[in-house]
Amino acid sequence: MHGGDVYRNQVHMDFSVNVNPLGFPRSVKKAMEQGILEAQCYPDAMCEKLRAGLSLKFGIPSDQILCGNGASELIMAICRWKMPRTAILLGPAFLGYQRALDAVGCAKEYFLLRKEEGFAFTKERAEFLCKELEEKKPDLLFVTTPSNPMGRLVPKEILIMLARQCERTRTNLVLDECFMELTEKPKDSSMASELLDFSSLLILRAFTKSFSVPGIRLGYLLCGDKGMAEGIAAQLPEWNVSVVAEKVGIAALSEEAWLMTAREVIMREREFLTTGLGNLGAKVFPSEANFLLFSWKDDALYEKLLEKGILIRDCRDFEGLSTGYYRVAIRTHEENEALLRVMREL
Amino acid sequence: MHGGDVYRNQVHMDFSVNVNPLGFPRSVKKAMEQGILEAQCYPDAMCEKLRAGLSLKFGIPSDQILCGNGASELIMAICRWKMPRTAILLGPAFLGYQRALDAVGCAKEYFLLRKEEGFAFTKERAEFLCKELEEKKPDLLFVTTPSNPMGRLVPKEILIMLARQCERTRTNLVLDECFMELTEKPKDSSMASELLDFSSLLILRAFTKSFSVPGIRLGYLLCGDKGMAEGIAAQLPEWNVSVVAEKVGIAALSEEAWLMTAREVIMREREFLTTGLGNLGAKVFPSEANFLLFSWKDDALYEKLLEKGILIRDCRDFEGLSTGYYRVAIRTHEENEALLRVMREL
Repeated sequence: MHGGDVYRNQVHMDFSVNVNPLGFPRSVKKAMEQGILEAQCYPDAMCEKLRAGLSLKFGIPSDQILCGNGASELIMAICRWKMPRTAILLGPAFLGYQRALDAVGCAKEYFLLRKEEGFAFTKERAEFLCKELEEKKPDLLFVTTPSNPMGRLVPKEILIMLARQCERTRTNLVLDECFMELTEKPKDSSMASELLDFSSLLILRAFTKSFSVPGIRLGYLLCGDKGMAEGIAAQLPEWNVSVVAEKVGIAALSEEAWLMTAREVIMREREFLTTGLGNLGAKVFPSEANFLLFSWKDDALYEKLLEKGILIRDCRDFEGLSTGYYRVAIRTHEENEALLRVMREL
Repeated sequence: MHGGDVYRNQVHMDFSVNVNPLGFPRSVKKAMEQGILEAQCYPDAMCEKLRAGLSLKFGIPSDQILCGNGASELIMAICRWKMPRTAILLGPAFLGYQRALDAVGCAKEYFLLRKEEGFAFTKERAEFLCKELEEKKPDLLFVTTPSNPMGRLVPKEILIMLARQCERTRTNLVLDECFMELTEKPKDSSMASELLDFSSLLILRAFTKSFSVPGIRLGYLLCGDKGMAEGIAAQLPEWNVSVVAEKVGIAALSEEAWLMTAREVIMREREFLTTGLGNLGAKVFPSEANFLLFSWKDDALYEKLLEKGILIRDCRDFEGLSTGYYRVAIRTHEENEALLRVMREL
């Protein structure tokens, strides 16, 4: 069970995948077309141009940046490089971490945020997690900001606290910021500007969500240390980023304005959808991202919406959640209205 | 050092990558364009359509077929699934096996074919390899047919002998048939029709070479056993095959005629290039594939041709070869003539 399975479902509107509701700009489309024209060439095995662009964007040396066939490939490569025995996952969280840890036979433990606190990562919870780290010294800690499926940002001071503690306990903090570019203040909320202070820190990012190109596959990884980047690179297949994907990334780096517009739409529509779902009786959890988690009286909402051709994410398989929890992406106003209309008539 | 690095070289003609000299047919181009239109959808994580098509082509159940982001991803996944301690590689061979084995810390040993025998895989050598297998019981055996960089087919009876022996010694035979579709009798020379007799056999294939789409990344793996396929699949990232790549594969499956034409061109041009290079003083080794290995008096041929904008493969880094060995792809008549003309004037 995961989002975006339009292959085995009849879907008119897909709220199950959290991508930019505006889609991608013309320059990204052109980059894909150019990629096709160069399909007869091998990709650049070093992704030199894209890594140079990312280096400039973040002020991080390009030899601390890796590109991948989607973030999921990079998560697996991290696990193969580390070969962890133990990992802690801040949950509820994306199931992909679990899959990658299972592939290397790693024992995993969830540190769950609480429904009763709206899944906020409070200072108290953070201090408790730091104690757990001290005690268990796990090889890996997975944290997502904004969290998924909740959409909450982890406060910057908590991220710094965790990164410091992970340096002490020799834990690699894998910070997944895949949805960061679609939050209100992506620069201030990200740890990218602090990366060089923490040699054990890994920050995951993806173009997939920000530029709505999940079909193309493109993620990247910012590594707190050059040696770590080399080690992880050795776990990636050669030519792992397609010609089309690298071109998409390069074009996307010049589209800051597109992201700004998207953020405005998302903010406005998040409020609209939060209010609308609330009026229908949903308990909507606070979100700062381009998707919303809510609980609903009826635990067959997924099936009922699918009958109407609308795909949402049933969250029952997330550790820490259960039946009756759902996630919807924030889409365009028209689509959001349509969703509310259909739900009203259920 | 590998073929196809047009990113750090000024290249007018690329003889370093062994792809179909005819490029790809219109239907494959259309498939890529359609892929771009669907870039906003996640790929089918199960590659259901493409696997169904391959199942039909080979008469192998689709749950014994895996698709990958290029064959290189599948080679790594095999190594992760098996976690081998020891591997034997029939050499000289593609360097990618070595890289994947290094990534899992496996000890590797080459079983080299002999220059003096034109790199033929004789029955005598095969019997000797069988003894080695009996003695060393390696976890993996890598065999490429046609071999790379030599382009020689392994006789079918030898393949069967090896597959049988590998069943006995609990070795997984990884048979790389990536160039098979561009040889004269791809069906007769392949082990695909015998796959179901050997539960430890793995056959690698790629659309990259046959349809000249290395920039798109698409390989597949035929597994002698369903459980083995499941195990290897768990080592692959989710959504590893892009929307564009899956569509390319589906379209390519209907292009048998395109491959037939390519085979005719390759056969004719292989003879032309073999004679031409021989007349220039090269020692050309026998090949049944879309590329030629030759030795040359001058060990700076790579650099000299690159000065003229022609990229070939310097084979000095292949185990069992040395300076003065080069590989060229068989291209169109015009390009092959141009290569000979430039070499004549060196």
